[in-house]
Amino acid sequence: MTDPRQIAESYIALWNEDDAGRRGDLFAAGWTDDAHYVDPLMHGHGAAEIDGLVTGVKSQFPGFSFRLIGKPDGHGDYVRFSWSLGPDVADAPLEIGGTDVVLLRDGRIQSVVGFLDRVPPM
Amino acid sequence: MTDPRQIAESYIALWNEDDAGRRGDLFAAGWTDDAHYVDPLMHGHGAAEIDGLVTGVKSQFPGFSFRLIGKPDGHGDYVRFSWSLGPDVADAPLEIGGTDVVLLRDGRIQSVVGFLDRVPPM
Repeated sequence: MTDPRQIAESYIALWNEDDAGRRGDLFAAGWTDDAHYVDPLMHGHGAAEIDGLVTGVKSQFPGFSFRLIGKPDGHGDYVRFSWSLGPDVADAPLEIGGTDVVLLRDGRIQSVVGFLDRVPPM
Repeated sequence: MTDPRQIAESYIALWNEDDAGRRGDLFAAGWTDDAHYVDPLMHGHGAAEIDGLVTGVKSQFPGFSFRLIGKPDGHGDYVRFSWSLGPDVADAPLEIGGTDVVLLRDGRIQSVVGFLDRVPPM
């Protein structure tokens, strides 16, 4: 049985991991080799490309981290969860928020389709 | 370019269509032949099976209709929108609500993954 919270927490942990080696371990353990990621701003195929997206977001938002919002849910091989990205300080306002839909294969992430729920004014 | 609102409105119109012939026309016009539907409660493959899901919901909730909630969004071939299902009268409380993620192929619905956002207490 898929545990949506466990999948979501592992996913968020990967995006928050600053060490490239540990991110590589998380990709290897939790994602399929041909995993695909797409959201309104970027897309990648395979761990190397997707890790490039992760590092790009890290360099764009130094000192920010991702947090889960609400309760992850899912059915079958699908998991859905919402997140925020904001400054890594207490009581920071939620600056950016989104919802991701993950498709699993044999318990590992095969694809991620992300949507933005809140975007700060430009 | 995909128009998320147009896709969402066509989708809702199909679920609200009581005439089987017109639903068949809507499937033929807006869905691929191998379209797939899945949500936490049911799944179907191809127009005939998915139409069976639609008629099942209709018989389970007579006098109810679907309404779009909020603003459909999307990127690339993906569209996301939220809906409610409730009595077809003015100011009815929203009884059931969900969010669907649609993947298009050549502008037609290839797959739908649905999630439930609000479910009435049993």
